[in-house]
Amino acid sequence: MARRTARDLRSENRFEVLHALFELGPSTRQELARHTGLSPATVATIVTEFLSEGVLRVATVENNTGGRPQERLTIDPERGRIVGVDVAETYVDATVYDLELGVLGHGEVALDEHENDPSYVVDGIVRAIEAAVADGGVQQKRILGVGVSMPGHVHPDAGVSVFAPNWDWHDVRIEELLEKVLPVPVYVDNPLKAVVLSEMWFGVGRVVDSMAVVNLGTGVGAGIAIDGSLMRGATNNAGEWGHTLLRLDGRPCRCGRRGCVEAYLGAPGLRTTLAEIDPDHPTLAQSRQRDFVEAVALGLDAGDPALKELALRTSRYLAAALGDLVNLLNIPSVTLTGWTSTALARWLVPAVRAELPDHVMPGSLQGLTVEPSQVPGNAVALGMAAFTLQRFLTRLGLGSPAGTRPRPDPEP
Amino acid sequence: MARRTARDLRSENRFEVLHALFELGPSTRQELARHTGLSPATVATIVTEFLSEGVLRVATVENNTGGRPQERLTIDPERGRIVGVDVAETYVDATVYDLELGVLGHGEVALDEHENDPSYVVDGIVRAIEAAVADGGVQQKRILGVGVSMPGHVHPDAGVSVFAPNWDWHDVRIEELLEKVLPVPVYVDNPLKAVVLSEMWFGVGRVVDSMAVVNLGTGVGAGIAIDGSLMRGATNNAGEWGHTLLRLDGRPCRCGRRGCVEAYLGAPGLRTTLAEIDPDHPTLAQSRQRDFVEAVALGLDAGDPALKELALRTSRYLAAALGDLVNLLNIPSVTLTGWTSTALARWLVPAVRAELPDHVMPGSLQGLTVEPSQVPGNAVALGMAAFTLQRFLTRLGLGSPAGTRPRPDPEP
Ligand SMILES: [Zn+2]
Ligand SMILES: [Zn+2]
Repeated sequence: MARRTARDLRSENRFEVLHALFELGPSTRQELARHTGLSPATVATIVTEFLSEGVLRVATVENNTGGRPQERLTIDPERGRIVGVDVAETYVDATVYDLELGVLGHGEVALDEHENDPSYVVDGIVRAIEAAVADGGVQQKRILGVGVSMPGHVHPDAGVSVFAPNWDWHDVRIEELLEKVLPVPVYVDNPLKAVVLSEMWFGVGRVVDSMAVVNLGTGVGAGIAIDGSLMRGATNNAGEWGHTLLRLDGRPCRCGRRGCVEAYLGAPGLRTTLAEIDPDHPTLAQSRQRDFVEAVALGLDAGDPALKELALRTSRYLAAALGDLVNLLNIPSVTLTGWTSTALARWLVPAVRAELPDHVMPGSLQGLTVEPSQVPGNAVALGMAAFTLQRFLTRLGLGSPAGTRPRPDPEP
Repeated sequence: MARRTARDLRSENRFEVLHALFELGPSTRQELARHTGLSPATVATIVTEFLSEGVLRVATVENNTGGRPQERLTIDPERGRIVGVDVAETYVDATVYDLELGVLGHGEVALDEHENDPSYVVDGIVRAIEAAVADGGVQQKRILGVGVSMPGHVHPDAGVSVFAPNWDWHDVRIEELLEKVLPVPVYVDNPLKAVVLSEMWFGVGRVVDSMAVVNLGTGVGAGIAIDGSLMRGATNNAGEWGHTLLRLDGRPCRCGRRGCVEAYLGAPGLRTTLAEIDPDHPTLAQSRQRDFVEAVALGLDAGDPALKELALRTSRYLAAALGDLVNLLNIPSVTLTGWTSTALARWLVPAVRAELPDHVMPGSLQGLTVEPSQVPGNAVALGMAAFTLQRFLTRLGLGSPAGTRPRPDPEP
């Protein structure tokens, strides 16, 4: 079996320290060692490297009675800028962050879902980034890296969109295309990996280290972390919960199989359910998916009985499909994210919780929490920014252009 | 988040060295360090401890030109005996092993599945162990520990059968009951955890470090390992793939839910499928489950058309349910184990492989292997023996009776 290399371990230790700083805020070396479980010597080395590279700065110095002065360290938000990009089937959403992953600016571009040329999508990404950069008043040259979440099956190390069924893309070298037009390192990954990282760093990961982050939008999927490790699978394809069965030989799914969870819980699946309840329901006239889901939420507010039945059936499907996830993985925490979750959480979450005992084994039900995500802003963009920050730290001090770049001037 | 303690780490490192010795056979300290990724100093410390405790011995000394003599180390099979016990609903199967987990003796006792008194089950376990010990000509006093796999939800640290639906057991303190009658440390766990450990150490784990081990018997379930770690879940309840959905609102399952995988792929599920095909089929007269499955295998050999249809439908259900597992986890390897797998592998495995492309996402299909287990003997008993050996090593040198026991006399 392949073992971790010394370089892997060095990167992992750096991420542990960084992650601890996000969790604890300004910390002493001792606090970082205690929190990470790393040796004081390892923490001291990493802190020294980070200080010399400008990633950390000394926030305060405390003079303890009888001891040496204690430096309290913090991430230096001004060290540079990171961009996180969420590319979905109908939009590109870009956010610029400082090095503490505080939001500086935001930009959004609509995509025509019938256009599938890579240059069209690349252009959309660039325009969204430009909008975010302008919104934040950020200097282009201060950007240390861009993380781009792409739908479908992505190979992050190769920077390739292996398969994007919505565009019928096969092996599109998206990182290369983007690095031609963006003069900074680009990191690509899949939204399920991004949402679980954002949740591990800024959401439920602060209290649990095993979780599923269930994303409900046009497509559905689950990001999974077990014992603090993001589950990627053999080919970065883990988490395709949307293409597990709810009902063998059930509704056709766009993956070609029948009866998948996505055919019931994706936005088009909700539309199918509503058409089963009332084929003439006026909400079905909404042709754009997000408009449809927003209209469902408004109609539920108004007490529409067909939409109440839709929420009931959808909650039952969701409880059943979450039951499978929990029975298989025995995870203590499920977080709901994505725009369908955001729009409908008020109706879905209580109904799902009520249904869960019918679907979860008793031994896995106790202590199980199902909650809407508390991560602020676009969780996909935030997760991609966190990946990009990780990658930046891995390259730091290894002679890469980003790593050796001198500390730039502040924005005017 | 809780971090690993120094003691956890010390135990993990010991297991890594032990596991490497199982994988490599007699090895030098350098080879162990290279294989485990541990530092030479850590390996040297562990080897010294293991040598002083009699767990290892020096197999050979090689005189390399110019270098120091190289000791090649091996597990000392004579250091003691370990018993692994597979308790199922209708039988207890016990195996005695040497410290290299070589089989010395075997014993089996039938259980009346309508008896649910814990003392009845404990008595069956004791009689099976006695039979195995007699079969192997092993001295009772040489036994270092007994590992017992119990059906249902088990809490290994507490030694408790939390819930065994087949016996309607709730919180039965099974380890305590067994330690009253067996004068050695007892370790209890669940068969899904045992089969995956046996597979990690002695089966596909030699070539992959992420896998599902799918157990088909009366009940069905999946042991899961990701990146070399056994997945236990929050309450040791991970792997209940048998109670994930094949078909919402489908066949009633004994868990109380409808449409679970187990209702189609457990031995009683196979019987239901056959009754759907031909309610008067003579094989249905077999009332014992294992007899029924054996009769199905014989009838398939003879070309019985109803049984061929049964194999076809069962393969399709199995491919669909494995598709869910692979789509969610993106694991590269599925191993089939359990007595239904053993009896029907010849028919199921080729048919399942042919069906898989209809159920697995393309990005997770490439390189996926589905194979019958190659682990010899009873994989549950072997896995329990491996757990017991791990626990023995954890206690070694910590002042426990087993740890400080002097090296006993050899068997006569
Ligand atoms: Zn599908
Ligand atoms: Zn069930």
